[in-house]
Amino acid sequence: MTRKLPTFLSENENGLWMTEDERENLKIDYRIKEIIFEEKSPIQHVMILDSYSFGRMLVLDGIVQTTSIDGHIYNETISHVPLNIHPNPKKVLIIGGGDCGVAKEVCQYSSVQQIDVVEIDQVVVEACRKYLPEVSGGLSDPRVRFIFEDGVNYAQNSPAIYDVIIVDSSDPIGPAEVLIEKNFYRSLFNALKEDGLMVCQSQSPIFHGEAMEQIFARIDDIFPKTKMFTAVVPTYPGGLWSFTLGSKKYTAPNSVRIRELDTLYINEQLLESCFALPEFMIKQLSFR
Amino acid sequence: MTRKLPTFLSENENGLWMTEDERENLKIDYRIKEIIFEEKSPIQHVMILDSYSFGRMLVLDGIVQTTSIDGHIYNETISHVPLNIHPNPKKVLIIGGGDCGVAKEVCQYSSVQQIDVVEIDQVVVEACRKYLPEVSGGLSDPRVRFIFEDGVNYAQNSPAIYDVIIVDSSDPIGPAEVLIEKNFYRSLFNALKEDGLMVCQSQSPIFHGEAMEQIFARIDDIFPKTKMFTAVVPTYPGGLWSFTLGSKKYTAPNSVRIRELDTLYINEQLLESCFALPEFMIKQLSFR
Repeated sequence: MTRKLPTFLSENENGLWMTEDERENLKIDYRIKEIIFEEKSPIQHVMILDSYSFGRMLVLDGIVQTTSIDGHIYNETISHVPLNIHPNPKKVLIIGGGDCGVAKEVCQYSSVQQIDVVEIDQVVVEACRKYLPEVSGGLSDPRVRFIFEDGVNYAQNSPAIYDVIIVDSSDPIGPAEVLIEKNFYRSLFNALKEDGLMVCQSQSPIFHGEAMEQIFARIDDIFPKTKMFTAVVPTYPGGLWSFTLGSKKYTAPNSVRIRELDTLYINEQLLESCFALPEFMIKQLSFR
Repeated sequence: MTRKLPTFLSENENGLWMTEDERENLKIDYRIKEIIFEEKSPIQHVMILDSYSFGRMLVLDGIVQTTSIDGHIYNETISHVPLNIHPNPKKVLIIGGGDCGVAKEVCQYSSVQQIDVVEIDQVVVEACRKYLPEVSGGLSDPRVRFIFEDGVNYAQNSPAIYDVIIVDSSDPIGPAEVLIEKNFYRSLFNALKEDGLMVCQSQSPIFHGEAMEQIFARIDDIFPKTKMFTAVVPTYPGGLWSFTLGSKKYTAPNSVRIRELDTLYINEQLLESCFALPEFMIKQLSFR
């Protein structure tokens, strides 16, 4: 019996392979141990695959989103940098973040009282909680409230109640393109308290330099203080990944708090050094 | 007419592709514009390929060694870190480095009087000087002396004349394995002046943690001072790459000198922050 595989999966004499070919000129093939979960949600094709090189991976429409081996690098960076810059974060909004990895990190802060996760696809959340524990930690903290709706809508209608907003979105292609529009950043500004701050992932400095520059420029137009930082995410193209901070007040990390946390990637030193940018990035952003 | 392609090149309806499958469970396919150079040297199969995503690439036995788009990241890191730590480098030895990228960076230092490049494969040097100018800069500085012999032999027989030694080797697999043996590091120690220092690439912290640890431990056994630093090399597996410094005396970078240099990646901030290691690396090396 042969079952019907999605086009990005194939079988050969060496087993099952997943081919990521979102980019025209570069493909990555992951050898797969097992298909753990597969469901076509109203939003997208959702899979949890167990791979030889990266352990279990969340794959949406054939694109690897996060993996057991390196998911913590992205999630720790996008969470702990803003939460160590804000001196007393109480209400945190996560837009996207269906894999629950960001919320898991935010739960480490005892000061935080409410974590709203606005994720459009409930299937992703349920799959990750159940089948991707290395990333989600099985997340079941009572401070976390899931809101299954469109993040752009939610932000537009939110009052100014949040201390920190984390935008954990997929690549801004197709329907996700609105997540890098100026109106969206303005609604985030409006959903933040008077000393609030937001961060978002801002793509690869090497492969998406223009998108990165655009995201930075748009946030910089709205927020009084803007900074860029980086992390190395092995499963993202180019490895080097950029994040943008837009803040109403605070920009300096408090490196004391991080010492008490349980992390695999970020620490006191990286909290400072993640803001040290390669020369080509400084030149790229120097129109600012 | 069909010409005979090496096994790692194939043609389909989308053109010519190179498949890097050194690792059993992960393959990377680069779409290729053109084969610029191909020669079977006495040492290895040497190719310069023009790719869509990374520009021209040096490919040895089917493995990408350096590319036009990101070669400078590796070359600037492995060169400028040691040359900014040593206060007055005059004689520099490069072991490997056939792509000439490291020597090109070392040539930026007016204090340096002699640059010995010991590369086993003359074909690599000639191909890169001619066909990979983005990496080699066409290198023709009179201070550079090429010595086409085995680096291990050369180091073993060298008197203690060097201020800085840079080991720019391929992965320590097969014949290159001797480049991570303790005897090799001891001969580097002996080829350095009483205040000299060496650096080498020490593999991926994510995929080759054991090799990285071993290299660090062996260097640390021989040199009074050992430090690890990192860079992000997009075309190397995992992106994050480690380098080990073994020094007889100096370990602090002089960040003033770097300001005068022409670089695309490393700068004053990165010269310091490249020593800030992720938490999992610190834990891995904490037996020290």
